[in-house]
Amino acid sequence: MSTLLNDKLVSFRKQFPALQNKQYLNFGAQGVMSSRTIDAICQSYEFVQETGPLSGKMFEWIISQCDATKVLLAENFGGAAQDYALTQNATEGCNIALWGFDWQPGDSLLLTDSEHNGVVAAAKQLSKRRGVAINYCKIEAPDSHEEILKKVAECLKLRPKMFVFSHVLWNNGKVLPAKEIAKLCKQSDCIAVIDGAQSAGVLPIDVNDIGADAYAITGHKWIGGPEGIGALHIRKEILDLIHPTFVGWRSTKYDGSENPPFLEGASRFEVATSPFPLLKGLMTALNVHQEVGSSLERYNTILSIAAQLRSSIEQLPGLKLVCPIQESSLVSFTLEKGKPSALVQTLEEKYKIIVRTIPSPHCIRASINYFSAQEALDLSAALKDLLTSQAATN
Amino acid sequence: MSTLLNDKLVSFRKQFPALQNKQYLNFGAQGVMSSRTIDAICQSYEFVQETGPLSGKMFEWIISQCDATKVLLAENFGGAAQDYALTQNATEGCNIALWGFDWQPGDSLLLTDSEHNGVVAAAKQLSKRRGVAINYCKIEAPDSHEEILKKVAECLKLRPKMFVFSHVLWNNGKVLPAKEIAKLCKQSDCIAVIDGAQSAGVLPIDVNDIGADAYAITGHKWIGGPEGIGALHIRKEILDLIHPTFVGWRSTKYDGSENPPFLEGASRFEVATSPFPLLKGLMTALNVHQEVGSSLERYNTILSIAAQLRSSIEQLPGLKLVCPIQESSLVSFTLEKGKPSALVQTLEEKYKIIVRTIPSPHCIRASINYFSAQEALDLSAALKDLLTSQAATN
Repeated sequence: MSTLLNDKLVSFRKQFPALQNKQYLNFGAQGVMSSRTIDAICQSYEFVQETGPLSGKMFEWIISQCDATKVLLAENFGGAAQDYALTQNATEGCNIALWGFDWQPGDSLLLTDSEHNGVVAAAKQLSKRRGVAINYCKIEAPDSHEEILKKVAECLKLRPKMFVFSHVLWNNGKVLPAKEIAKLCKQSDCIAVIDGAQSAGVLPIDVNDIGADAYAITGHKWIGGPEGIGALHIRKEILDLIHPTFVGWRSTKYDGSENPPFLEGASRFEVATSPFPLLKGLMTALNVHQEVGSSLERYNTILSIAAQLRSSIEQLPGLKLVCPIQESSLVSFTLEKGKPSALVQTLEEKYKIIVRTIPSPHCIRASINYFSAQEALDLSAALKDLLTSQAATN
Repeated sequence: MSTLLNDKLVSFRKQFPALQNKQYLNFGAQGVMSSRTIDAICQSYEFVQETGPLSGKMFEWIISQCDATKVLLAENFGGAAQDYALTQNATEGCNIALWGFDWQPGDSLLLTDSEHNGVVAAAKQLSKRRGVAINYCKIEAPDSHEEILKKVAECLKLRPKMFVFSHVLWNNGKVLPAKEIAKLCKQSDCIAVIDGAQSAGVLPIDVNDIGADAYAITGHKWIGGPEGIGALHIRKEILDLIHPTFVGWRSTKYDGSENPPFLEGASRFEVATSPFPLLKGLMTALNVHQEVGSSLERYNTILSIAAQLRSSIEQLPGLKLVCPIQESSLVSFTLEKGKPSALVQTLEEKYKIIVRTIPSPHCIRASINYFSAQEALDLSAALKDLLTSQAATN
């Protein structure tokens, strides 16, 4: 298993201001931007103002920035550039898919029982406004891929029109067998929509190989890009079933006709003016990671660090890992005694270690990146310290 | 009529990089950011990375930034802070209103015939997907307010459920009597939605006084904020008729319950992570304008400069003003000979004067800001120059 050398990463880490004054283990909430990324953003704003802000020439620049971003997304995550729509985040991508289908009364939607509360809120609102029934596929933390596929196959017997599931479950870090699930969905004429908020930038992803109808990602978590830029990969074969909902000048051809058609690719899901200068930030962030190592090397490094952290946590009495199988960058654990929120606050205030709580199961989640070796050790030590002092006072 | 002194503005203009190397008259497409605004954005990105990016403390910062932005929007445009939802732009605001109503077969939607193509695209997609009929209220450029109100009253007899209209028409700069139209809509149980893309930052606006159900604005045009931050003011009394469509973690209370309710105010229309650091840019931009003079003084100055430009254009043979009545910052004119796009390109390339074309009526649109006196003179001179040389070659 090829991992990245720690020596290389110690030097690499220096370009991230967020890593210099704390122990940051919250990439699943938001990732860290390199100085190069921040500089690229600032230079981009300056360039736009000096050169434009908006003229014939600068309009071409905007289009070229969007196009270049999509080319880079395709290089990183597979598929064709024209099948990517730029969004604000993964939740918006899921909303586009959810509201894009012309639901009929009696139709049903399938989710797993571990989806992010934002996507669940969207599904519930769709249910309320369009009379769609929601069913939940219950995934247990210890489930093997075979068990998961069996459960999904069972749920697909209810003939849902769409299945929205996370590639990596945000609460416990389980990696779902996305490709095999997408295949089962296809066999059942069910649209497969993947929430890739916790997978893009963690696992090697090839959207074509996975074969889902839509794959929603965000740039501000594991990719380390600016907040508010994400993307939705959407197969062109599904564009007759997923229709644009929110639209604007970016959705249609600008041919001066009274009824301009939608753009041919996924750009039809884009609306109007968004923070175009930030695209340079997303592109720089993608390049920063690509330069240090392949997605597989980075993923292997994450797994290796996460395994060490898991092993430390297992040895500490009073803590319990939520998921017995570790395949991703999220290490969630419950407390025998005390509130997760109190422990998270103590870690932040006393140790400058940043992790977060998860509501269900009620636990603490540490997010491991490929350059988090030291932080993972610091977290282990702090947990040991806290649990020892807790035991002493009991 | 109190206007701003030119001397004061000559010095004020120096803080805008975009104004230093060209004659910029395209604020209706995108406004210019001051150095203070650009600095605020860059410092905000640096602050977020150094302090966070995301922790318990930084989550509070995000909420405080959103709240502070809404307080400032309310100070500038009236209404209560909690009745503002942050959006990406005015088109998104109009989409929220359009898709938020639970349309029934046979319902109809009213637009003017001069709405922006982005909003028209949204209305047409709604029509296609929800079986809503669209009617257009035809506004002629010379129409008086009385004539417009008569036409609107006539259209309201068709009992549309919603009327979406621009406060300032983007093609010819006509200012519609928004308050009186909103009143007519109320009398007809018709939801009044205003596209304020060309009014916010130009006219003094008090959304409460206008009394429309929804008022959509954008920060990147006349306000001079960053691209991708806008807002929707939505009356709380209408929240039982306009439902959220796209939703996410920002829409609901985060109370840990299985069915968390929507937030009480307009925040329910917000979705998920957006470029929070840019909010400092929008706030700085609003303050930059407020500091130089009141919204009425700025508007009066705009009108005074626009009147001079109109007068010059009227005197040039071969040019014709689209709108005989001037009430806003947009000065549109048609060409007797030649293509608008060719003239716009020549102005950009030969004179570094930035204006744009409008598709319907096919014309050239110059956007006048309160500090555009010199650019307006330069445009007049360039047009005279070009028309003279054109006449000489004929």
